This record gives sequence, C-alpha cells and structure tokens, in this order.
Amino acid sequence: MATLHNDLDAETALAGQWFDHLRRHSKTRLGVTRASYGEGEQMAHDLMQGIGQTLGLEKRIDAAGNLYLTLPGRDRSLPAIMTGSHLDSVPEGGNYDGAAGVVAGMAMLARWHRAGRQPNRDITVMGVRAEELSWFPAPYIGSRAAFGLLEPEALDQCKRPDTDRTLADHMKAAGFAPERIRACERQLDPARIGCFFELHIEQGPVLVAKDLPVGIVTGIRGNLRYKHCHVVGRYGHAGAEPRETRHDALLAGVEFVSRLEALWIAREKVGGDLVATVGQFHTDTAVHTMTKIPGEIWFSMDIRSEDNEVLMAVDRELRAIAAEISARRGVAIDLGAYTNARPGPIDKGHRARLERLAKEIGIPTLSMASGAGHDSAVFGNQGIPTAMIFVRNDHGSHNPHEAMDLADFALGLKLLVAAVEETDAA
Amino acid sequence: MATLHNDLDAETALAGQWFDHLRRHSKTRLGVTRASYGEGEQMAHDLMQGIGQTLGLEKRIDAAGNLYLTLPGRDRSLPAIMTGSHLDSVPEGGNYDGAAGVVAGMAMLARWHRAGRQPNRDITVMGVRAEELSWFPAPYIGSRAAFGLLEPEALDQCKRPDTDRTLADHMKAAGFAPERIRACERQLDPARIGCFFELHIEQGPVLVAKDLPVGIVTGIRGNLRYKHCHVVGRYGHAGAEPRETRHDALLAGVEFVSRLEALWIAREKVGGDLVATVGQFHTDTAVHTMTKIPGEIWFSMDIRSEDNEVLMAVDRELRAIAAEISARRGVAIDLGAYTNARPGPIDKGHRARLERLAKEIGIPTLSMASGAGHDSAVFGNQGIPTAMIFVRNDHGSHNPHEAMDLADFALGLKLLVAAVEETDAA
Repeated sequence: MATLHNDLDAETALAGQWFDHLRRHSKTRLGVTRASYGEGEQMAHDLMQGIGQTLGLEKRIDAAGNLYLTLPGRDRSLPAIMTGSHLDSVPEGGNYDGAAGVVAGMAMLARWHRAGRQPNRDITVMGVRAEELSWFPAPYIGSRAAFGLLEPEALDQCKRPDTDRTLADHMKAAGFAPERIRACERQLDPARIGCFFELHIEQGPVLVAKDLPVGIVTGIRGNLRYKHCHVVGRYGHAGAEPRETRHDALLAGVEFVSRLEALWIAREKVGGDLVATVGQFHTDTAVHTMTKIPGEIWFSMDIRSEDNEVLMAVDRELRAIAAEISARRGVAIDLGAYTNARPGPIDKGHRARLERLAKEIGIPTLSMASGAGHDSAVFGNQGIPTAMIFVRNDHGSHNPHEAMDLADFALGLKLLVAAVEETDAA
Repeated sequence: MATLHNDLDAETALAGQWFDHLRRHSKTRLGVTRASYGEGEQMAHDLMQGIGQTLGLEKRIDAAGNLYLTLPGRDRSLPAIMTGSHLDSVPEGGNYDGAAGVVAGMAMLARWHRAGRQPNRDITVMGVRAEELSWFPAPYIGSRAAFGLLEPEALDQCKRPDTDRTLADHMKAAGFAPERIRACERQLDPARIGCFFELHIEQGPVLVAKDLPVGIVTGIRGNLRYKHCHVVGRYGHAGAEPRETRHDALLAGVEFVSRLEALWIAREKVGGDLVATVGQFHTDTAVHTMTKIPGEIWFSMDIRSEDNEVLMAVDRELRAIAAEISARRGVAIDLGAYTNARPGPIDKGHRARLERLAKEIGIPTLSMASGAGHDSAVFGNQGIPTAMIFVRNDHGSHNPHEAMDLADFALGLKLLVAAVEETDAA
C-alpha cells in the first residue's frame, strides 16, 4: 500500500522555495520570461540539476538539451516510470506553466530520498525543452526531438523572434547537438518507458469556477487550425448598392462564423467534445472605410476536440457551409489549408488509478479534457501509457497574473506521489 | 409646348468634347483627380467660365468659389431655375461623377443659345465646390457654404490629407473669402430659387442591372453613421476555456451584425427603404492570434434610408439588440455616437413632371432612391423644390473604371432640357 503521500509537508515547503527561486531568477518587466534555449530556461535546468545532485540522482542531458534525473530502481531492466513537464515560459508569462510539473517530480523524488527507499524500477523526472510556441513556431520541440520526431527543417526554418537566430543555432550555442536531432536520432526509447505522468496547471477557468483543486485529464484535445480563411466578394458603394446586388464579404463571413457557433452548440448538445475560436477576423485595414461594402475579409479558426473523428466531421460540415454560403451570396469563401494536431490519448488504466486514489486520499477532483496541448500528447501518441493531473490556477496562463496556490499544488503532488508509488509496486 | 429637347445632337457633341477636355486636363496615374480647391477642380471651373463667355452668360463667383452662369430671363424678378452639380472628384476617380451635371447644364444653355431664345426667368447653372469627402471631411462644403450653413469650425478643423492645410487656407489661396463663409453669410437666397435640378451618374449598379439608361430619383437617402462601435469581452485560451465561461467579443459582434442583416431584410419585406453596411470590422490586429479568444472588436455601421423615421426606429432596435446580446453573452457592446444626415426631400411635382416627360419623349426610366448623398439634398432641405436625374453608369463611381455612355448622357440631357423648358413656361 502506498504511503509516501501521507507526509509531504517538507517537500511541499521545498517546492515553494524552488518556485521562489525560479521566479526571482526569471523575473522580467511584467512577469517571468524563460525563453526556449535562453537564459531563463537554462537557469531552471541548472536549478533542477543542483537539486538532483543533492538527492543523488543520475543525470542525463540529451542531444536536444532535455534533462533526465533518475532515481535508479532495483531492476533497471524494467521500463521506467517517467514524469515531468517543460521549463520554458512564454514572454512575460507566469511562474507555474510547465515548471509546476518538473518541481512536482523533483519533490516526489525528494520524498523517496527522505524515506530512504529505492523503487522497483527507475523513476525519471524529465525537464523538457522548448514547449512554448512563442519562441520557435513548431510544437513540442523538446519532446518530439527526444523521440526523433522533430522535422529537420524546423531546425533551420524556425527563428526566435527576439534574436532572429534559428533553432539549430540556439541549440548549438547552448551546448547541444542539433546535427543529431536533424538526423532524427532517438534520445528516448518508448519501449523503455512504462508510463508518463504530467502534472500541469489548468490553463482555463474550469477548476476555479467549480471550486475544485485538482483535475484529472480525460484526453488532450487535438486541433484543426485554419490560419488564412479568406472571403472574396465585391467592394461597392454603401448607399447606392441595393441588397440583392451586393456581394458583401463581411456579411458572408459573419454568417459563416455564426453557423460555426451553431454547429458547436449542436455538437455539445449530443455530448461531443468541441471548442472553437475565431481569434482573428478583419476587413482590409488598408482600404476599408465606413462607406464601402467590404469586398474581402480574412479570419482564422482554431477548433479542438478530444476526438479526431469529431474534428474531421466538423471540417466536412464547415466546407459544406462555406460552399452553400458562397453560392447563395455570390462570394468565394476559401478556408485554405488546415493543420491537424491529433488528440493526445490518455491511458484509461492510469486515469482510473488517479481517480480512485484521489477518492481514497480525499482529494476533490474533476475529470476534464485538456484544451491546451501538452508534451503528454507526444508521449501518448508514442503508445506510452500517459496520464495528466491538473492543478487549479486563476487568471489563465501565458500571462503574469497566472495564480496557483501552493495548497492546491500540494494536493496535486500528493496524487502524483501516490500514483507513482502504486505504479512502481504494481 | 417644349421643343428644345428635340434637337440636341450638336450639344451632345459639345458635351463629349467638354468631357474629353476635363479628362485630358485632370488625368492622373490611374484615373482623374480634381481636388476640392485644387488644380483639377479649378481647371473645370475655368472651362465652364470659358463656355459661359462664348454663350454670353452672366457669371458670378461666390465667397466660397461656387460658380454661377446665368442665362437671364425676361422677368428677372421671378425665382430662378437652377441646375448643376459639383466639379471636384475623389483621388484617382472617374470623369463623370459631378461633372456630368454641370456639363448637362451648360449643354442645355448652349441649346437655348443656338435657338436664340430667351427664357421667362433666369436659368442658372451652378458649379459647386468641394462635394467629395475625400479632401475635407465635411459634407457638401460648397453648397452648404452657399446657403450660409457651413459650420465655421469646419474651415479650421478640416485639413486636406495631401497638403495638411486647412479648408480656410485652401479657400483663401484659391482667391475666395473664407472669412465671409465663417460669418455664415448667405451667398444664395432660397426664396430667389424656384427649383433645382441635378443630373448625376448613378453610383450603384441598378440601372445597368435593369438595362435602363435613366433614373428618376424618388428621394436622397439620409444616413446614420456609427464610426466606432466597440465590443469588449474577455481574452481567453482558445483550447482551455469552455463555451459557457467565454466572453467572446467576436462571436458577440458576429451575432450583432447578423441581427442587423435580419432586421434589414424584415424592413425590406414591409417595403421600407433601407441599406446597411458594416464597412470596417476587426479584432485587435496588435494582439489577436489564432489561439486567443478575442476580448475586443471594433466595427463601423453606415445605415441609409429615404425616411428618417425608419433610421430612428432602426437605431432604437439596434440599441435593444446590443443590450440583449451584451447581457446574454456577458460582453459590453457600445455603439457609440452616431451622426444623422437627414434624407434629402425630392419635390413630388417635379418628379412627376420628369416621369411624365420621359414617357412622352420615350425615354425608358426607373424610379429609384439615391443611395449616395448629393448637393440636391442641401437644396431640398432648404425648402427648394428639387429633383434629380440619374444616368446609367457601369462599375460604380469613385474609381477609374466609372463608365458612362454618351448616348445615355444624351437621354438624361434631353429629359433635363425638356423639364427646364416646361418649368420655365409654366
């Protein structure tokens, strides 16, 4: 029976100190800034290495700069239990997005250390590089590089906006080996990983709204992204052109978006997981005026679901809607190409374990989808049994007002410690 | 019985030469450019003065630079018949918007001249200054100044974007007397004007679509203009925020605009005159991204009708819709202030005269609203019996592709000549 989670006050206090250290050393004008392959991220990696030394952990740094700190198990041939998250942040972001998962892992290993216990199998905490899209526009750079999955062109095509230098440049300058990543050399073997747990702050408002400290993730939403939807109609005189001869691109776009919303509500009614966002929508700022019927508009769509079948069905419906509106209104609605990030599968067994343990320990939880993407999606899609713990967090993430209570973190940590100990014993 | 209109070939040919002169002398990169109080406009005034000398007309130039060329009547105490339009154009516009009405007036007087006839009352052709809003952002500068109606602050606050100099500066530099306009001194006495006819190209596509050469205007639409409508919601994470906790400013704005369109269609069904245009609509281009729920959007509205009661009712309905959507979606929709240009009344008697004469002469016409504003609206709102003749024109106006056939112009001219002769005889 798992017992380590019963006494975590010392490790919770340590975690609090580590969070303070991270904040102090990456504080910028408004929030914290830990650029991918930049100073702030490296500072966080250095801190974790120092803690690892204190705890006597094995250290490995891979060709992409990912950090692995391992408490060796009795039988090192068994697949490892892994946990962790990323250590970079968005510019002027919050202190917990990513870091909470690594700190939780280290606090867990500190608990094993204090208990003087050795696990049956390796327990590894991973500090993932470069998860935030703000720095290099390719998803999950560190975790995909670890599995040899990063497309080589990303190394040369992705440039950090603040330095205008490529990802390969930055990797090399930081002391890593981009040529091995370019060769898609595997840094991690999925067959050697028994499972992956990731603790992360919730980036939406759900746990705050429901007044629950911890979430257990049911699935990581994949997405369909349409960057450049474009409607072409015909410019015309606002006063002199009657309704029936207009080809108003704005009214066509407005109808399209309201039908997207209607489709979303209909999917929700039958229980389908879906969120949709039109983040950008605009007439042509160079030529639009109050007295001209818009002849062109542009918009973006970000559509997410735990279920890729739902995403594919939504795409088909949207294309039919676009065609119907185009024909009726005499405009051309072009949704353009989409990118499809597949949903990240969550392991049913580990999810059930988390739910049962939370109940046994007395941690109030909510089962919920992860709307944001996480490194866990990469592990899950590699066939590694993966589960995620969310910790309540106010004001969303990616901004300086991100606010996680240490008391909520302590409950998430407790659940992680219990789950890892039980998994190790199984 | 009117007879002058039966033989207009010579005057139509003259008009063609005058149009060629205007185009040749105001041709710019793409189209023609006759800036208000600029070279191109002055060139057109000079041409009309030269024609006036040839025809032996009386010339007057008022303090705002409006030109009046008069064929004196037998009884000079009778209120005059006036016709005309403006001689400026938008930048890179077409050759006929405005100029067609002055050219038609001069061709009409040329016909009286060739016939060697004197009218019973004065017939005056007016070359109006500064009608196009592209140069100075105040409506109907020339015609309002003529009636002492131009608000004095417009002289100092309106600056021409290409010169950054004020309207007063430009008036003075062109040799006119802005101080008299500032004092709201009347240049024209409405009581001395029996009626005003304006011939103008149609700026919409209606006559082309209906294959009719001439339109007879039923009313000049007034407008309600909302420059700065603003929706404030809350930014949020595109993947992590569920539908029910979102305060999506874009979806609120989209719903508002679709309900504006629905209201428009409903008004049309009961026969109300209305057009509505949302010419500008945009998320915040500085901060919007594909993966952020929009927290703010802005849009403009231009709503027009022949009936000011309809405009006021639409404003009330839109405010109710905005309040309802704001409450339901948890956003703030602020329509902001509007400006209201009252519709320009068209005289029923003169309109009926035009319709009857067109039928007698055999000119196919359409009775239609004027969606664009015209100097006629100023005359009509001064209580002067006013009527308008539209000439078919392809590709709209305010662009280099504006295309009026001289054959269509000849039919509009014929109707003007007949109407003026009959009015003079009445």
